[in-house]
Amino acid sequence: MTVKLVVLDTHPADPEAFDQHYLGVHMPLVRSIPGLQRAESGRVDTALDGGEQSWYRIASLYSADRSALDAAFSSLEGQATAADYGKTAPPGSRMFTETVDR
Amino acid sequence: MTVKLVVLDTHPADPEAFDQHYLGVHMPLVRSIPGLQRAESGRVDTALDGGEQSWYRIASLYSADRSALDAAFSSLEGQATAADYGKTAPPGSRMFTETVDR
Repeated sequence: MTVKLVVLDTHPADPEAFDQHYLGVHMPLVRSIPGLQRAESGRVDTALDGGEQSWYRIASLYSADRSALDAAFSSLEGQATAADYGKTAPPGSRMFTETVDR
Repeated sequence: MTVKLVVLDTHPADPEAFDQHYLGVHMPLVRSIPGLQRAESGRVDTALDGGEQSWYRIASLYSADRSALDAAFSSLEGQATAADYGKTAPPGSRMFTETVDR
């Protein structure tokens, strides 16, 4: 079983400053969290369905299961990451957990 | 460089029938597409931000770059997959491309 935390960020007011913080501070914080299997992030290029480009960035954080994810975010590093996210995520950003199909 | 096709499906009218088709027909079609590096799908469990549970399923299809993704969906298997998606994706489902950060 794999549980994935999927974070969908809306468009920031200042994309350049946002990316600098995101890549230089936020993702390194994410990668410092003990117990996460993998972290992947990227910038949305296009809405392939021709609709609104609703999201600016998407991140996927992989853990063994939901309790491992909760434990990861209970760690000091997880709490620092969540605090940084709270301060920097553009309004309307969303966060879901997903159980990956086998 | 990696380009990811991210598909966000809204809630189907009949989740059980949808899952049966999704796992039994749709994802096998996706996996038959030549030139995709990886395909991952899963069911959304919770909106961790306490907001609306907007999505039912999320899928991620990995390719080397955008032209490899376009070539993959130009193949017969890619066209069959897109046709199946068009017939079965719940209204309001979304599709984006994302360039994965290195």
